[in-house]
Amino acid sequence: MRGENFEIRAIGRVESTLTEMGEAPKQGDEGAPDAWIEFEPDVLDALRGIEAGDELVLLTWFDRADREALTTHPRGDTSRPEAGVFATRSPHRPNPIGLHRVHVLSIEGDRMKVNNLEALDGTPVIDVKPVLRADVAER
Amino acid sequence: MRGENFEIRAIGRVESTLTEMGEAPKQGDEGAPDAWIEFEPDVLDALRGIEAGDELVLLTWFDRADREALTTHPRGDTSRPEAGVFATRSPHRPNPIGLHRVHVLSIEGDRMKVNNLEALDGTPVIDVKPVLRADVAER
Repeated sequence: MRGENFEIRAIGRVESTLTEMGEAPKQGDEGAPDAWIEFEPDVLDALRGIEAGDELVLLTWFDRADREALTTHPRGDTSRPEAGVFATRSPHRPNPIGLHRVHVLSIEGDRMKVNNLEALDGTPVIDVKPVLRADVAER
Repeated sequence: MRGENFEIRAIGRVESTLTEMGEAPKQGDEGAPDAWIEFEPDVLDALRGIEAGDELVLLTWFDRADREALTTHPRGDTSRPEAGVFATRSPHRPNPIGLHRVHVLSIEGDRMKVNNLEALDGTPVIDVKPVLRADVAER
């Protein structure tokens, strides 16, 4: 087994008032602002059927993350014991992918406005998915 | 704005009895089997703190997907109108990332057994995250 590599591409980018890592809330439900996503022209067909009011999972690429980090203090709290980054939602991890559950507020051409997005201005967006019942069901 | 590229690496790989695309259920809660994840030796520290019983989101890379697909018939049903792939959970999409909510059944060295994983044998794993309350809350 090898640690094979794959190439991902930015399909869009976040436009947000959040510009500094220190300001970003740890999670979207902790007071993150509304933000715009501007999509690349060649993926607009892939948005067909998405409407205001829909609930989506946005996947982003934390391009300012430390990819060498394997352990961290949960929520940056040094009084808590270190945990493996896969046991946390830290942006610092081998593949710095962010998972954001948002509502679509509006769609205008190649731009989509969403609520509660805890991603910095300029963050690349790499995928968009609808929320499924199985994602949100209590088990 | 450019369609910038980033490199991701496989942090592990799925070992499953599912070997053919046709056999794979559309979603994990539709009868997907238990499966093992074998992790790369250099990321094992990142698993620290994860235990049997934990609920995780696994991110996989559908390495057999069609990355040129922008629209699809939802759930492969040609009687339904085509939708943009971002409005569906089709594996065929510009960045073919899979999102799988699973429970950890056991951990043995560099291997983790999980339930309900609708990914083919050999599928690369690219990230592991804990499920948050905000991911599953009804809104």
